[in-house]
Amino acid sequence: MQSAAQSDMKAFFEPEAVAVIGSLKENGGLAYVAIQNMLRFGYSGRIYPINPSYTEAHGFKAYPNIGEVGQPVDLAIVITPPPTVPGIVEECAGSGVKAVLVVSENFGEAGGEGMKLQQRLTEIRRRTGIRIMGPNTIGLVNTSNGFITVPYYIAYDRVQKGGIAYCSQSGFVGPTAQPLKERGYPIARMCDVGNKCDVNEVDLLNYLADVPEAKVVAMHLEDVKDGRRFMEAARKVVARKPLLILKSGRTEAGARATASHTSSLAGDEQVYDAAFRQVGAFRVNTWHEFWEIPRFFASQPLPKGNRIGIVTHTGGAGVVATDAAVEAGLTVAKFTEKTLKKLYDFSPRLVYNPCDMGPILSIVDNPFYVQEEGTVAIMEDPNVDCAAIATYGMEQIIEPILAMFVRLKQRTSKPFVVWIYGMQLTAMEEMVRQLEAHGIPAYLEFETAVKALGIAARYAAMRRDVTDT
Amino acid sequence: MQSAAQSDMKAFFEPEAVAVIGSLKENGGLAYVAIQNMLRFGYSGRIYPINPSYTEAHGFKAYPNIGEVGQPVDLAIVITPPPTVPGIVEECAGSGVKAVLVVSENFGEAGGEGMKLQQRLTEIRRRTGIRIMGPNTIGLVNTSNGFITVPYYIAYDRVQKGGIAYCSQSGFVGPTAQPLKERGYPIARMCDVGNKCDVNEVDLLNYLADVPEAKVVAMHLEDVKDGRRFMEAARKVVARKPLLILKSGRTEAGARATASHTSSLAGDEQVYDAAFRQVGAFRVNTWHEFWEIPRFFASQPLPKGNRIGIVTHTGGAGVVATDAAVEAGLTVAKFTEKTLKKLYDFSPRLVYNPCDMGPILSIVDNPFYVQEEGTVAIMEDPNVDCAAIATYGMEQIIEPILAMFVRLKQRTSKPFVVWIYGMQLTAMEEMVRQLEAHGIPAYLEFETAVKALGIAARYAAMRRDVTDT
Repeated sequence: MQSAAQSDMKAFFEPEAVAVIGSLKENGGLAYVAIQNMLRFGYSGRIYPINPSYTEAHGFKAYPNIGEVGQPVDLAIVITPPPTVPGIVEECAGSGVKAVLVVSENFGEAGGEGMKLQQRLTEIRRRTGIRIMGPNTIGLVNTSNGFITVPYYIAYDRVQKGGIAYCSQSGFVGPTAQPLKERGYPIARMCDVGNKCDVNEVDLLNYLADVPEAKVVAMHLEDVKDGRRFMEAARKVVARKPLLILKSGRTEAGARATASHTSSLAGDEQVYDAAFRQVGAFRVNTWHEFWEIPRFFASQPLPKGNRIGIVTHTGGAGVVATDAAVEAGLTVAKFTEKTLKKLYDFSPRLVYNPCDMGPILSIVDNPFYVQEEGTVAIMEDPNVDCAAIATYGMEQIIEPILAMFVRLKQRTSKPFVVWIYGMQLTAMEEMVRQLEAHGIPAYLEFETAVKALGIAARYAAMRRDVTDT
Repeated sequence: MQSAAQSDMKAFFEPEAVAVIGSLKENGGLAYVAIQNMLRFGYSGRIYPINPSYTEAHGFKAYPNIGEVGQPVDLAIVITPPPTVPGIVEECAGSGVKAVLVVSENFGEAGGEGMKLQQRLTEIRRRTGIRIMGPNTIGLVNTSNGFITVPYYIAYDRVQKGGIAYCSQSGFVGPTAQPLKERGYPIARMCDVGNKCDVNEVDLLNYLADVPEAKVVAMHLEDVKDGRRFMEAARKVVARKPLLILKSGRTEAGARATASHTSSLAGDEQVYDAAFRQVGAFRVNTWHEFWEIPRFFASQPLPKGNRIGIVTHTGGAGVVATDAAVEAGLTVAKFTEKTLKKLYDFSPRLVYNPCDMGPILSIVDNPFYVQEEGTVAIMEDPNVDCAAIATYGMEQIIEPILAMFVRLKQRTSKPFVVWIYGMQLTAMEEMVRQLEAHGIPAYLEFETAVKALGIAARYAAMRRDVTDT
């Protein structure tokens, strides 16, 4: 059975009918662009442009106000001058709209009058029951139905559909601030809750726990509104999928900067740290980790233990990967005699973990065969739970490398990550995208790739502990 | 006056005449490719191909052996099967060659016979005085004279000339393993010392301390051969330019992996840590930092203090930058009344540090003017020592943004870093390259940009302390 709160959140992410209230001026009006983006990203629900000065937009009939629509509306997107917003939200509530997303800025974060306007929104939400996301948000993306609320120009018209839910209280986590397409992130949902006058991280967590497409939740937080409810919701997520948190406002100065950003107060850092640990969430430390680490969970199974096999092409990188593995809580697997024998047959130089294939691959006639079979031997070893595999990225070999990893994925049930290095950045980025499109997480930094495996092993252990009790 | 050791190292990096010993087979022979790379990268010294089966290569007369050259040779590059190497090095020594660079692999790192061969090289070096770099190295790049020793295909034919010396004991730090051109790193020298049978990190540090084009040294180390001499050489560098060190083999497992990579033993981690601190070197923790942080020092002056001004376009990023600044040892500057007044005149929303210009720039008619003048006001503030400036990266605005930062650089004598974010990765990378070409360090991650400033402030304080005593 679906709770009322769940159904509210579905109005935001999975509306069947949406009203867009704001400027419909062609090529630039924010409501006009928002509708344009919905169409470009493939949203096929009903769309009602709302503006008294227009009769249509993008071929849809426009209405002077929400009351005139006369059809059920799940979500209204409001992009109008701040003083007009409370009245419009009131009207939406009166017309049976379930939820509003207020894009407009200059509310709580601007202080003074803006703060008062935001308080009025909170009051309307309490009185009428309408759900409000924002204000000061670019809203959300849902790759399952192509729904998107962003009212600004986006340089691409699709993002890779996949298993990650990225969320934040900043528009920095959104299509206008991130090269989502060129990075190839596999995305299920994306959301910026803005000033959180109503919908906040707790609602998001409760919703995302129930979204089957979301295999992992990556959440950027500056503050938490209600600690107890947050922990409850986080536990619900963690019982089903990993939760990665980037908490900013860690330092005192950072906390002060938070206040002027979203008018919320960051609390004591140690309290957050303890709370995250208690619910089983994993902290990531940088935006780079926030974006990159979830990719592992979008497609790979959890490792059954923490023993890593490392396949490298350069000895130096093997050392780096080993350091990173140990620092991420992994142990370097000790290969069985059977595996060592197989490796030895390729070359006596290969009987190590990290297994540096570089010197061998440059002298054998069939490097792809040796790389693939050597890697399979390592991954089939009962002492190996997961693997980090380095590969050289180059335009001329994208195809065979891709084919090899696709086969490798079929030949093993254990998780692995790929690290790509080389001298052609553009080709390396293309390989990351192509591997990602085949459900293989590929990274340009070995340390990040290995850290993702480390978090996976810790999450798997946590889940086993729960199951065992 | 130049020491003998200095003159030895010049034979490697600045040879007037070089012999290349190995296969001269067209399009593939390693000696052939090495010479080809020298020509592509603009080396104009004398080149002597050495191989008894050829009479010429690339238009240069080929000699059957080094003894036949009959002209002074500074450096011989040896790329022949391992068992032949000691004899060839012996011949080089007998013919008055000052230095040899042994590219060939399968020496100490392979154990057994290889180890014995390497010991013979060490013995020849001791007996004859010839200097040896390697074995197991791809050698070096010198952007000042276009000299390069790499015998493998390189996908580009130039790297940006600039102030960084990158060095390592792994070919991972070299043109075939890094997209040097696409990243736009400004490079003075680059060197892989390989197995260090003779030339090691100490020689490199002593040489690089004296190279005026090298404004900063970034060194990857797995081990240090001679602690006392290392510290002496490191001190010499630090007295003139910052020294950044990425030490791998930090963990016990990593140290073991080091042994199978270069046959050297990594020592106690805490000893390294204390030694680096004592000489005033800065540790970086990841390859990403190893490559990115030096870019600051290649072009920017040192800050006079540790007070940072942060200019951002998104509130969320301002919080992240503040956290990163505090964690890097910087303090968030308190603007003077005069600065606050100037900012207030643009908008009351701007009177903060971090100064979030995002909301203002999207509504004013002259965003570039406001961004530039607001930033200049902050940088001219006597309470500000350095600045981190966020800017949006997009194909359509590369030109005005570049022009603005070039003017900014002329208008201020204080150091700053630029952080570029946006939705077009390719355009953002292009902006990084273009800014870098104008001596402006630009980053795709705010944290790394700010960390570079933090290290700069700490280095500047260290230098002031020395000057004050």
